[in-house]
Amino acid sequence: MLWLVGLGIHGYKGLSAKALEVLSSINTIYVEKYTSPMPDPDIDALKGALNKEIKIVPRWFVEDGREILESAKSNDVALIVYGDPLIATTHLELRVRAEKDGIKCRVLHASSSITSIIGECGLHMYKIGRIITLVSEAQAIASIYYTIYSNLITDNHTLILLEYNQEKNFFLKPNDAFNMLLDCEKDQKHDVISEDIFAIVASRIGSDDQRITSGRIGSLLRYDFGAPPHSIIITGSLHFTEIDALKVLTKMFDEPTNNSKGITKIAEQMVQKYVPKAKRALEQAMNSVNDDKGFSEIFENAEYYISDAERFLKQGKLELAVLSIGYAEGLIDAIRFLKRVNA
Amino acid sequence: MLWLVGLGIHGYKGLSAKALEVLSSINTIYVEKYTSPMPDPDIDALKGALNKEIKIVPRWFVEDGREILESAKSNDVALIVYGDPLIATTHLELRVRAEKDGIKCRVLHASSSITSIIGECGLHMYKIGRIITLVSEAQAIASIYYTIYSNLITDNHTLILLEYNQEKNFFLKPNDAFNMLLDCEKDQKHDVISEDIFAIVASRIGSDDQRITSGRIGSLLRYDFGAPPHSIIITGSLHFTEIDALKVLTKMFDEPTNNSKGITKIAEQMVQKYVPKAKRALEQAMNSVNDDKGFSEIFENAEYYISDAERFLKQGKLELAVLSIGYAEGLIDAIRFLKRVNA
Repeated sequence: MLWLVGLGIHGYKGLSAKALEVLSSINTIYVEKYTSPMPDPDIDALKGALNKEIKIVPRWFVEDGREILESAKSNDVALIVYGDPLIATTHLELRVRAEKDGIKCRVLHASSSITSIIGECGLHMYKIGRIITLVSEAQAIASIYYTIYSNLITDNHTLILLEYNQEKNFFLKPNDAFNMLLDCEKDQKHDVISEDIFAIVASRIGSDDQRITSGRIGSLLRYDFGAPPHSIIITGSLHFTEIDALKVLTKMFDEPTNNSKGITKIAEQMVQKYVPKAKRALEQAMNSVNDDKGFSEIFENAEYYISDAERFLKQGKLELAVLSIGYAEGLIDAIRFLKRVNA
Repeated sequence: MLWLVGLGIHGYKGLSAKALEVLSSINTIYVEKYTSPMPDPDIDALKGALNKEIKIVPRWFVEDGREILESAKSNDVALIVYGDPLIATTHLELRVRAEKDGIKCRVLHASSSITSIIGECGLHMYKIGRIITLVSEAQAIASIYYTIYSNLITDNHTLILLEYNQEKNFFLKPNDAFNMLLDCEKDQKHDVISEDIFAIVASRIGSDDQRITSGRIGSLLRYDFGAPPHSIIITGSLHFTEIDALKVLTKMFDEPTNNSKGITKIAEQMVQKYVPKAKRALEQAMNSVNDDKGFSEIFENAEYYISDAERFLKQGKLELAVLSIGYAEGLIDAIRFLKRVNA
């Protein structure tokens, strides 16, 4: 039988009474410390508390999984895992493989950094959108940016977990994460991230040295948050009780603002940009064309569709607004193409 | 000092070693059982394990909070809470009030039903959208429906916690929840919920009697899920490892399907409709126009923008796809207007 035992976020004393009971009767105990760093004193204390040997195993050992599963076929085996065991897909996969091999598997859940961070910051769980992990590899940054964007549009907060690489002993710093997001804004240009966006940095949650800092990204950019691990939250619209909680529970550099308020949908941005552009182009085209070979009908239609786009925008029918402004531009540009040839 | 102590989801033995240590030194211990039912044997066992009196308190007592806070000013006081303490806003508010009153407050986190349910079903935490609670009061159902819709559009799963009312000893049944959602579909008509939608019912998670059931809503509608509590998950698009896990970890009535696939965005519907239409119109225009007064440039551009629309659609850049197909239609129609006049 395989036990996946959650350690929770409070060090080795985060193990539940049930977990200690189970572990005391098991001889083969593994512990992983690659999903989150577990300090050596904690591991030593764990060995002392259980009064038996435990094997610290690297990521590849759990991903490979064969030794664990082989052993679990005939013996009781436990893998101790930081936080809540099934949040890491590696552990989920091990569980599924165990069941497929006919090995009974039970999970002892424990406190997760996800729900803990949200609660410690005073935010409502029901306002959390899709959770993401930010890694320093630049490739993934655009998808992170669009998740924040999508969460903000639906008024949700975004919890951003920051890369931890045990082999390289690397923790992505909140400061670097903010700079990556600001750089991404320069490419994507949807006004999602700026130095004025309100953010929260949750540091060392669950430890005695826990600190939470909040404020404009501009204020947080050069702040020293101390030892890792850290997570970031980009808040959406905040309930007044959340604002109240943030003021009490965090070191706050700036008053919280509603980050969702400044977000306009891409479609909205397009229409706002292209309507005045189309109006100018139409005026120029009307002034420069003298013959009336059907041009007047095109002008009338272009005018009609520009005002349609404005009306649809007001009604929140954004797709129709984009379609209309695109159509108007097509009509106007057709004249431009013809004129260039006829000039 | 006030301690908010998480009990987790595994009964009284879910208390951590740290929690037991803290509780053993505290004389005033409250326990709430209104956020989730705690069986009497568990409470008796808890009393036995701590070897001291604990007071079971109702919701109003914690919401009022004055006795707890008054006592915490001069003594160490603990409130034992089901799951992870700060997920319930009542406990979050108590914490904020304590800090405002200058009362030190510490939270001992524990396993939460939220992360546990997601893991036990084999789903990835990173694919969970906004979490909701469904209550039997019909008023709120439309907002629940639109949250599911919004989660499906962004490929996310929706965890739906079901109402528990301790005073009335009422648990909303999954069957009734499905019927409420199906009824709501009749009003809202966005093809979000139907009997063909794949759903998961997670029952009694954390207990020895845990069961997970999955299948089409049509298959689950009349199934007897046994004793509460239950939760529902409406899945979005599923990763193949999630499908794999669901097959092993749940009693499955029907193969999982991609519920997000059936949900098309308005923009997507538009582009799918207008691309073939524009292609036909362009072909007709090219066949019927003989002179070359700049028309060839218009044709080339129209072709170019139609293929742009198709490319943007594939890339999920829906706004650009709509703009492009609108523009192409404008170019083609301009020729139509000119031809009609010149004919």
